Amino acid sequence: MCGLFGMYAKKTDVARATFFALCALQHRGQESAGITTSDGQLIYTHKGMGLISQVFDEDNLRPLKGDLAIGQTRYSTTGSSHILNAQPYLIDTQHGHLAVGHNGNLTNTLALRSKLLEQGVDLVSSSDSEVITHMLAIANGSDWEGRLTDLMTKAIGAYSLVVLTQNAIFAARDPMGLRPLCLGVSPTGHVIASESCVMGPIMAKYVREVRPGEIIRLDKDGVHSTQGAKPKQLTAFCIFEYIYFARPDSLLEDKMVHQVRQCLGEKLAQEAPVEADLVIGVPKSGIPAAIGYAQGLSIPYGQGLIRNHYIGRTFIQPEERLRRSKVRLKYSPLVSNLIGKRVVMVDDSVVRGNTAGPLVRLLRKAGAIEVHVRISCPPVQHPCFMGVDMPTYQELIAHRMSVPEITSHIDADSLAYLSHEGMSQAVGGKGSCSACFTGKYPVQLEKRNYQKKEFEVT
Amino acid sequence: MCGLFGMYAKKTDVARATFFALCALQHRGQESAGITTSDGQLIYTHKGMGLISQVFDEDNLRPLKGDLAIGQTRYSTTGSSHILNAQPYLIDTQHGHLAVGHNGNLTNTLALRSKLLEQGVDLVSSSDSEVITHMLAIANGSDWEGRLTDLMTKAIGAYSLVVLTQNAIFAARDPMGLRPLCLGVSPTGHVIASESCVMGPIMAKYVREVRPGEIIRLDKDGVHSTQGAKPKQLTAFCIFEYIYFARPDSLLEDKMVHQVRQCLGEKLAQEAPVEADLVIGVPKSGIPAAIGYAQGLSIPYGQGLIRNHYIGRTFIQPEERLRRSKVRLKYSPLVSNLIGKRVVMVDDSVVRGNTAGPLVRLLRKAGAIEVHVRISCPPVQHPCFMGVDMPTYQELIAHRMSVPEITSHIDADSLAYLSHEGMSQAVGGKGSCSACFTGKYPVQLEKRNYQKKEFEVT
Amino acid sequence: MCGLFGMYAKKTDVARATFFALCALQHRGQESAGITTSDGQLIYTHKGMGLISQVFDEDNLRPLKGDLAIGQTRYSTTGSSHILNAQPYLIDTQHGHLAVGHNGNLTNTLALRSKLLEQGVDLVSSSDSEVITHMLAIANGSDWEGRLTDLMTKAIGAYSLVVLTQNAIFAARDPMGLRPLCLGVSPTGHVIASESCVMGPIMAKYVREVRPGEIIRLDKDGVHSTQGAKPKQLTAFCIFEYIYFARPDSLLEDKMVHQVRQCLGEKLAQEAPVEADLVIGVPKSGIPAAIGYAQGLSIPYGQGLIRNHYIGRTFIQPEERLRRSKVRLKYSPLVSNLIGKRVVMVDDSVVRGNTAGPLVRLLRKAGAIEVHVRISCPPVQHPCFMGVDMPTYQELIAHRMSVPEITSHIDADSLAYLSHEGMSQAVGGKGSCSACFTGKYPVQLEKRNYQKKEFEVT
Amino acid sequence: MCGLFGMYAKKTDVARATFFALCALQHRGQESAGITTSDGQLIYTHKGMGLISQVFDEDNLRPLKGDLAIGQTRYSTTGSSHILNAQPYLIDTQHGHLAVGHNGNLTNTLALRSKLLEQGVDLVSSSDSEVITHMLAIANGSDWEGRLTDLMTKAIGAYSLVVLTQNAIFAARDPMGLRPLCLGVSPTGHVIASESCVMGPIMAKYVREVRPGEIIRLDKDGVHSTQGAKPKQLTAFCIFEYIYFARPDSLLEDKMVHQVRQCLGEKLAQEAPVEADLVIGVPKSGIPAAIGYAQGLSIPYGQGLIRNHYIGRTFIQPEERLRRSKVRLKYSPLVSNLIGKRVVMVDDSVVRGNTAGPLVRLLRKAGAIEVHVRISCPPVQHPCFMGVDMPTYQELIAHRMSVPEITSHIDADSLAYLSHEGMSQAVGGKGSCSACFTGKYPVQLEKRNYQKKEFEVT
Repeated sequence: MCGLFGMYAKKTDVARATFFALCALQHRGQESAGITTSDGQLIYTHKGMGLISQVFDEDNLRPLKGDLAIGQTRYSTTGSSHILNAQPYLIDTQHGHLAVGHNGNLTNTLALRSKLLEQGVDLVSSSDSEVITHMLAIANGSDWEGRLTDLMTKAIGAYSLVVLTQNAIFAARDPMGLRPLCLGVSPTGHVIASESCVMGPIMAKYVREVRPGEIIRLDKDGVHSTQGAKPKQLTAFCIFEYIYFARPDSLLEDKMVHQVRQCLGEKLAQEAPVEADLVIGVPKSGIPAAIGYAQGLSIPYGQGLIRNHYIGRTFIQPEERLRRSKVRLKYSPLVSNLIGKRVVMVDDSVVRGNTAGPLVRLLRKAGAIEVHVRISCPPVQHPCFMGVDMPTYQELIAHRMSVPEITSHIDADSLAYLSHEGMSQAVGGKGSCSACFTGKYPVQLEKRNYQKKEFEVT
Repeated sequence: MCGLFGMYAKKTDVARATFFALCALQHRGQESAGITTSDGQLIYTHKGMGLISQVFDEDNLRPLKGDLAIGQTRYSTTGSSHILNAQPYLIDTQHGHLAVGHNGNLTNTLALRSKLLEQGVDLVSSSDSEVITHMLAIANGSDWEGRLTDLMTKAIGAYSLVVLTQNAIFAARDPMGLRPLCLGVSPTGHVIASESCVMGPIMAKYVREVRPGEIIRLDKDGVHSTQGAKPKQLTAFCIFEYIYFARPDSLLEDKMVHQVRQCLGEKLAQEAPVEADLVIGVPKSGIPAAIGYAQGLSIPYGQGLIRNHYIGRTFIQPEERLRRSKVRLKYSPLVSNLIGKRVVMVDDSVVRGNTAGPLVRLLRKAGAIEVHVRISCPPVQHPCFMGVDMPTYQELIAHRMSVPEITSHIDADSLAYLSHEGMSQAVGGKGSCSACFTGKYPVQLEKRNYQKKEFEVT
Repeated sequence: MCGLFGMYAKKTDVARATFFALCALQHRGQESAGITTSDGQLIYTHKGMGLISQVFDEDNLRPLKGDLAIGQTRYSTTGSSHILNAQPYLIDTQHGHLAVGHNGNLTNTLALRSKLLEQGVDLVSSSDSEVITHMLAIANGSDWEGRLTDLMTKAIGAYSLVVLTQNAIFAARDPMGLRPLCLGVSPTGHVIASESCVMGPIMAKYVREVRPGEIIRLDKDGVHSTQGAKPKQLTAFCIFEYIYFARPDSLLEDKMVHQVRQCLGEKLAQEAPVEADLVIGVPKSGIPAAIGYAQGLSIPYGQGLIRNHYIGRTFIQPEERLRRSKVRLKYSPLVSNLIGKRVVMVDDSVVRGNTAGPLVRLLRKAGAIEVHVRISCPPVQHPCFMGVDMPTYQELIAHRMSVPEITSHIDADSLAYLSHEGMSQAVGGKGSCSACFTGKYPVQLEKRNYQKKEFEVT
Repeated sequence: MCGLFGMYAKKTDVARATFFALCALQHRGQESAGITTSDGQLIYTHKGMGLISQVFDEDNLRPLKGDLAIGQTRYSTTGSSHILNAQPYLIDTQHGHLAVGHNGNLTNTLALRSKLLEQGVDLVSSSDSEVITHMLAIANGSDWEGRLTDLMTKAIGAYSLVVLTQNAIFAARDPMGLRPLCLGVSPTGHVIASESCVMGPIMAKYVREVRPGEIIRLDKDGVHSTQGAKPKQLTAFCIFEYIYFARPDSLLEDKMVHQVRQCLGEKLAQEAPVEADLVIGVPKSGIPAAIGYAQGLSIPYGQGLIRNHYIGRTFIQPEERLRRSKVRLKYSPLVSNLIGKRVVMVDDSVVRGNTAGPLVRLLRKAGAIEVHVRISCPPVQHPCFMGVDMPTYQELIAHRMSVPEITSHIDADSLAYLSHEGMSQAVGGKGSCSACFTGKYPVQLEKRNYQKKEFEVT
């Protein structure tokens, strides 16, 4: 999970536009952020740890000159939280300078890594993105389109890329289209972004998705598209983008995410109705499905839980007796809405299962006389190896427990998940990766043994 | 607008509890935060600029020992954003050390200030809170209850206070009860807080409000209440706490704020109905009234605007052509929900009027065929001098324009405000200050001439 | 120990000049630094912890506008290292704004403090300087000269002051002249400084010392002098300024400090000659006396110890086995100069006695066949209560041990201190405080019981 | 100019020892510092910008575990002041992890760089050190000794290296021995350092220099030496290390630097005597030669200039009229020593010639009746391309002016440089690089065109 952006636009402060674009992509990653620009001569970069608003100020934004820019926001995964891993990743190559922003995860990293080391290309980090950058720099091909195509034949897994050279921006998406990427037009140029929600705030307009295997070049001549690798028969767009990741106002495969989520709730209403007085959503991502579920059954929708946004980035540990109730620090019940009512609590998914139980008990304590839990996707039973930070098999509650066991574990009066069919109908699309539900991975997996942390830089 | 907290509890890490309490009060002020504790011998303080999670870490929280603590979060008002103004304010007095947290605004500051300077009490800042602290330190009275009572006879305006001495916590509220303050009980002691939403996260229970003019002492003997100044005939609780400030899960005058807001929406539905296809709220504070309005008219409620929380704390200025559309950086429309619909947009209030117009145009551009604006309070026509950071007369749109003029200014198909009667019925209560609507201030105002900034510390 | 500076000069960037003046006074205090200016209307202040070069940058220096400035560098004394204690100390008084920089230590602080608290003047810190500032603000007198005079009748002990009001700079020195302060003239105005070494770097010229009890006002009309308190019969200028504190290029009582130090070494040569091959000084403060000693006995002077300046501000603790030899981290012997030689090691003073022993052993290990230690002042046997950070009686080696005992303790072949008479002759002057050698304090001491730390702010 | 350190020692906190070793090498570079350790399993690194004492604290030092460590302090050269360039430089290679610290400058960087890029080894910075690290990683050879030997056949120019692998420390020096490097023994292992001044503070003992072209391995079996490249017939040790760079207490080619400097002064006395009353040195590096000069002519040595160490790291610009006298901010004259005297001012070298003139005028203004300048090396007429940050031909005053012209330019009564022969006799040694005086470079130079800054990272 990361957010990518690229822009080629004349008479525009492209670094500033990239800043606001990254603000709109902040939900895709909050560990680090960076912007690289080119004025056709020099390449300028600033990156740092933390939120975009923490990394950038007028003083470090101002020097980022030029008509070309790429930017990235990075997701925090354990152990790799270091400025070395902040992107864009910038190197000097035989073909000139190259800056790369990457979203996704390769599944043959180890093999590629070994090959690079054997060729004498040394690496400074353990990140996929560094591997991709060096693969690209030494790829065969007479131009960057050629090299990106060559890269596509070797890299297996999920990757969306934005690439900056001295004079052009390139965008590319893996041949299965696992991670999102789209194209837009701005008053004086063109933009590339992980999600279309970027467009409005920077006065650009969504044009279309970058196609699986496609390579797009933005330069002084406008937009130029090449098909790199042949797209796979079946695309495998990550279905979790619909369920949880993407912003509700983004378009994915030309559908607005919010609408899909409401529709997931409606399907759930058809599949798993219940008599109740109030439908609430777990804020924020459970709310659209809750509204859909409520409308589907004509039960009043209302707010039942308030979420404290300020608790999110706190590292202070609660006292022992408060530790049991960490959920309580984040969510508060709206007693007046809940008291004496039969409540349906809708959430987007259950992964580890640490939140649902305490929330059910919180609602009961606040006066709910029944609490029915409805989840707008099927049980998550398999880890993701394509870029989503999901836990191991052992940590997935639906891997360890049956639905009745989970129902009892979370103390719910009833629990229902949306069926795989229901989900597919609501999402539609040309083919999605739903490996986390089914275990059918769209790519072959490498036996991972690079997990071992080999060095630490602070 | 500030958040106050106080706690006396044995065998509890009171500083840590105060930290989490302040997290729950963060919406009341984000400029600075501080915690002061006492172990009966020494007083310990840490304070700093920014969010509570930025000010505190394990290293500076750990040394805050003892059974007594007070904490404060401070609201940002122009020109006074400095660590010198961070609270609790700590001084040494003839009666021992004193730490004070203050929420509110005096209306006779200048007179009190002159009197203090004449008496030889010099001041280091231009803040009311420093004036109150020194007034308290030199007040007549044989104990702190006596001195707080004396203070109440001299200070005019709005003030809720938490005070820490070596061995006790005191809480006090002005005789008109302008700003909120409540009492709770924790497993091993008692707590004081600006809002009851604090209680749940720290495993405390709400007991009751501190009464206008009441002084509460928390010490090793438990809770002790004294009536300080005689409460005024009419209390004047700030009605804007219901409309906008307070957290929806807080109880004010024993009513849950969320319920009041939903009820404001229902009243508005009765007073100003409209034929429409969708009711949306301006996130986040307009949502409860929107739900109430939708239910009152049996129009579907839905989400129409997404708010980007990450844009809030950014100081980067957008480029010239984006500057016109600052609202666009913060809000995005959910096109799929809006297209072809007659939409009612409910918001809690209109103050300067800079947001409503751009939002209406945003909804139209996203496909809404009609946009009706409904405001769940009357027009704000008068500034507040009792602690709410409101603009001058000239900046208040409802002071400059009539409702039809505003309707046209914000480009709405129709605009309606809730009537004063409707608001009063929804809020109920024993008497509120609604001076910002009526201009009838509950206290005499001082001709303010201390506005002139006299010094600057960076 | 602190460094003070004040300036009134037209068409000059007085804040910038103050910055460079404080750089020249940095040896007098490295804990915190601050500058306050006035443009006749507003007062501007910036202060912070650390070296002047760490506290100030172009961004925070630029806003300090006006023709008047004072600045201070503060010495680090245990437990009070906090921004609250950084000076200039700025308050609002009945007579207008007041900024104060203070160097020295009162000996009746507790009495003054009690009196202030009784009068209702509360205090925010435990510092003398705050007491002085409030005393001044409430002093009797129709103008600041009057109030400074009144202050002089009440404050007992050591104090040099620079004071800034909206339109003038005041300088004052206690009636015994314990701490230094001098007047200079700059191309467009006048300056006040703790030491004359300030003058050169800022293109000013030394004029004369501020006299004991004198009050100097700098304003648009130039320099105006008033005698405040009658000066004491005997001045009591701190003799340790000559021996250790002041910069060698400063003039004290019109004598250059370096010359006095060389002369101390010459006297020592007369009083305690020894046959030797090389005279070395302990860098840096022992070097002038070493040169004087060498010349007095016609023994070659040379360098024998190199001091690593970078180790000074390190808080990393050496490993256990290195801890015994902390001195070794700071000093290295020049073996080629020392080998086979009879060496005289000259130092300015011995206080705790932790350095001399290890240095003697270091010289022996480097090949010196004899090591004779010569100290250019008498044994320090009494603590200072007038502003010098000296240890308690128990920590002073010369209080616990006789000279022969110390000789053996530090492993020297011989040890000699300069006599009191020798020191007095070298220093000359109108009367000095040498209480640290004699125990004869020039003022009555208060039984200190405010040592107890009563609060802690971080 | 950089400082290098390496250590293999059991039962020792090697990171902490490295910290203190770097403190002793701080004079060789103040831009950045870093330490890398290995515990045989993992590699740990921390590095940062600034002084060692600013980069390290207990929290970041503690995690650096193991028996092996290398450390580096880096010199500030314009335009490359960035954390990316901080060393040790750490990469993953086909032979395992590799950390490299480098002191020196290659003269065929561009050729090597092109070759690397052609081979597909991309680069992230413009530094020599990165080139060396990658060259090493892909060098031919079955072990690191083999690869270091291969590197020596390809790299031309100056380089001393410390290299850390999982289990060993390697040290290597270019075949001409341009930059210093020495070996020492510690209580539980061995150390490598740029200068022997490191040894004392960490309780190690100097053993010998690393020989030109030698490779030393430190591991669990102790010290192992290999001859890598055949040493050049003539070594070319940088003579400027004697004159200016090295610490006076270091041994270079088994001579103590201080002694060499004193001897340079004595030679200068023989070659260029003058009748005078006082010899002073420009602090700090001119002092040993001044002492030697004074003894050679039996003229009294004394202090004449005081240097303010605190001004060094300030970025504040003085006001226009002070800017002419920047030297004045740093140096103050000791008037009492100078007045009425004929003074000889000895300095180690004259490079740009910006300091000597203002100092001469400062001495005259302070009362010196004659000022004779003596320089303890010949005129610097050629830039250095082997690691010393020297200006271009145009900036070198001795390139532009003859000695009489310089004498007049700096306003001296007389000026004399030490002759090349005198310098050689004082230094002795097996052959030195004195290209900055003669223009005879020991290696072939590459036409530098990589000067162009190609990217900027902040």
